[in-house]
Amino acid sequence: MSPDPVSRRGFLGALAAGGAGLVVGGAGGVAAGRAGAPKVAAPTATQVPFHGQHQAGVATAAQDRLAFAAFDVTTSDRAELVAMLKTWTAAAARMTAGLPVADDVPAPLSPPLDTGEALGLSPARLTITAGFGPGLFDTRFGLASRRPAALIDTPTFPGDQLEDDRSGGDLCIQACSDDPQVAFHVVRNLARLGRGVVALRWSQLGFGRTSSTSSTQATPRNLMGFLDGTNNITAEDAPGLHDYVWVGDETDQPWMKNGCYVVARRIRMLIESWDRDYLADQENVIGRHKVSGAPLGGAHEHDVVNLAAVTAAGKPVVPMDAHIRLASPKSHGGQRILRRGYSFTDGIDPVTGELDAGLFFLGFQKDPRKQFVPIQTLLAQQDALNEYLRQTSSAVFAVPPGVAAGQSWGDVLA
Amino acid sequence: MSPDPVSRRGFLGALAAGGAGLVVGGAGGVAAGRAGAPKVAAPTATQVPFHGQHQAGVATAAQDRLAFAAFDVTTSDRAELVAMLKTWTAAAARMTAGLPVADDVPAPLSPPLDTGEALGLSPARLTITAGFGPGLFDTRFGLASRRPAALIDTPTFPGDQLEDDRSGGDLCIQACSDDPQVAFHVVRNLARLGRGVVALRWSQLGFGRTSSTSSTQATPRNLMGFLDGTNNITAEDAPGLHDYVWVGDETDQPWMKNGCYVVARRIRMLIESWDRDYLADQENVIGRHKVSGAPLGGAHEHDVVNLAAVTAAGKPVVPMDAHIRLASPKSHGGQRILRRGYSFTDGIDPVTGELDAGLFFLGFQKDPRKQFVPIQTLLAQQDALNEYLRQTSSAVFAVPPGVAAGQSWGDVLA
Repeated sequence: MSPDPVSRRGFLGALAAGGAGLVVGGAGGVAAGRAGAPKVAAPTATQVPFHGQHQAGVATAAQDRLAFAAFDVTTSDRAELVAMLKTWTAAAARMTAGLPVADDVPAPLSPPLDTGEALGLSPARLTITAGFGPGLFDTRFGLASRRPAALIDTPTFPGDQLEDDRSGGDLCIQACSDDPQVAFHVVRNLARLGRGVVALRWSQLGFGRTSSTSSTQATPRNLMGFLDGTNNITAEDAPGLHDYVWVGDETDQPWMKNGCYVVARRIRMLIESWDRDYLADQENVIGRHKVSGAPLGGAHEHDVVNLAAVTAAGKPVVPMDAHIRLASPKSHGGQRILRRGYSFTDGIDPVTGELDAGLFFLGFQKDPRKQFVPIQTLLAQQDALNEYLRQTSSAVFAVPPGVAAGQSWGDVLA
Repeated sequence: MSPDPVSRRGFLGALAAGGAGLVVGGAGGVAAGRAGAPKVAAPTATQVPFHGQHQAGVATAAQDRLAFAAFDVTTSDRAELVAMLKTWTAAAARMTAGLPVADDVPAPLSPPLDTGEALGLSPARLTITAGFGPGLFDTRFGLASRRPAALIDTPTFPGDQLEDDRSGGDLCIQACSDDPQVAFHVVRNLARLGRGVVALRWSQLGFGRTSSTSSTQATPRNLMGFLDGTNNITAEDAPGLHDYVWVGDETDQPWMKNGCYVVARRIRMLIESWDRDYLADQENVIGRHKVSGAPLGGAHEHDVVNLAAVTAAGKPVVPMDAHIRLASPKSHGGQRILRRGYSFTDGIDPVTGELDAGLFFLGFQKDPRKQFVPIQTLLAQQDALNEYLRQTSSAVFAVPPGVAAGQSWGDVLA
């Protein structure tokens, strides 16, 4: 290898010459150009467009794996924050196209610009979605007057056992991909590019999606063994996205138009207790049959839930404290949330010896004050499922609108 | 849904009727029979045979995801241990065929026999590999005379910073699959089946393989961004497996014939320090070029490493403290190890704020006294890579031979 900078084209050529047979994404294979002039090919099945009216990663068919990170901003210099967001956005655009964060492997006598573990991998439908936490609108950056009212402080509900060092954050990055190494690479490289401006506050890996967000996807099972997210809002449901996800003209902060809000909650499942529960109890707690996913009283997963049905003895078929009853839009004036959660496990609880596992909830919505907060308030009070859950983190972020090529996530706050 | 037990065939039928479109492994789709008489179909691309002379999951093309768990045996009743190993083996055979741990979903008034999150998923090449730790051969079960000399105590090397609650263990289970939910399901369900007999001691998820163990696989990159495992022993390398992996007649414990030993080490990478290092330094530390994977002095990944080469100035082309020199079979009388490691991340180090990430090393071999110990001794003393690593756990397990249908992993110790 020569000491000259090696272009990605050179890199891919070298791989091919080596006969390594790595799968190279269509985009990555043709998108590399000269330094400073990346040419991005037409999207392929492995590439989700980064630029657009909305950020990708919300109304995008849920990828299989998640790497999520929340950051504290450690500078109080607004210019540094602006510059970092510009760097982040440019790097994100490149990574979603299967490129390293910067054009070329540098000369040997400087650190590599990209950490390298995703070289040669397809982006595997990578999306990178940024969010602004409440802290960004404190006194440090002169943004207090720009804070949307819908960007509420991190909420706490009865029964919550929130861990501060897994909650909140000034910024968040959601990286979703069908390849976990590609998703991890994003968090690692953005943390690196942000050094001196931001510090990682917490992170969460998700190993399996627990929601479908496209009508083309099968409903997955969560770690309770139940089908989850049967009646979710999907990418194909334009009225649902309009009414419940994308911010419109109703906002007090016009810069948020076409954005949304995300509530992140790490919900640990007390799976050993759950696993000891009778099947019939589990089904009454959820309000659905375990194997088929049909609502109680129904036969098939997508049968309409009949909350009014009663048994011959006059008891409700779907119990009054069943999860699907309390979470139903019918219990909340029609309000819905686009759920995009992931199963996680973080090893063993050192106190109980049980697996520390559950569901990392990501709920995207137009206004948490009208959607997440009232829904979770009712669930926290009455949901039979609470016996088997422990809510260990909470955070809220404003997800700004999408950007056009050359723009930065921060431009809306300029 | 009727209150009667629902057969898996019924379950699959219900899914199909619901149009959920889940991908069902070929095996799972046809293997379900009446209770007590599972009929396992011919292996498909998604199914790796469980039974055989050797356990699967060693000389098996490395799957993409790992769930590894170590257990302490909490009973001192030998019969309980024997019964649990029988239950585990039977459940493992079923899960690798895409079946739940037991035949049928039970009646509503008992807990489900299987936790359910893998229902409808393909086994995705699932392998389940069991190992016996040194503790199994203490005084509790009358097995002291059966302990192989090669099953050494958990080793510690200079510089190790081992965490006791991530090290050791009386039993281990390695579940590898291309689907992480399928791998997690194994650890969860075996832990559940073992309740009262074993307790989870530690566990580790791996999100990306860092080795190829088949000549059909491309060499992956580890989190240092380098190609890893270029000269690994592969499933197709019968002489290599014979000479360096499978225990033969040389053993002091004939029950171990056709088994092997695995050393597990959680090797944290200090990736922020690594990422600040110059490219040339990184390449000298490893002894390979980063992008191409070629050994220093070579042009292509699979070029033969020339440890004797010197520059015009008389300096070794591959530095004396380069990782590939010190780990090379040429530095160890030809000894080799089948490496089957995985990248991991476990969130953020609460002290440094850095990502707690690295490589979970799994090294399979015929005799750790002749392979892992001398190799790691040299690496611990001299490897330039040590500056960027922290060895945080260590464990050794004897991997007994494979079983035939109806046999238990424990039968060799009967």
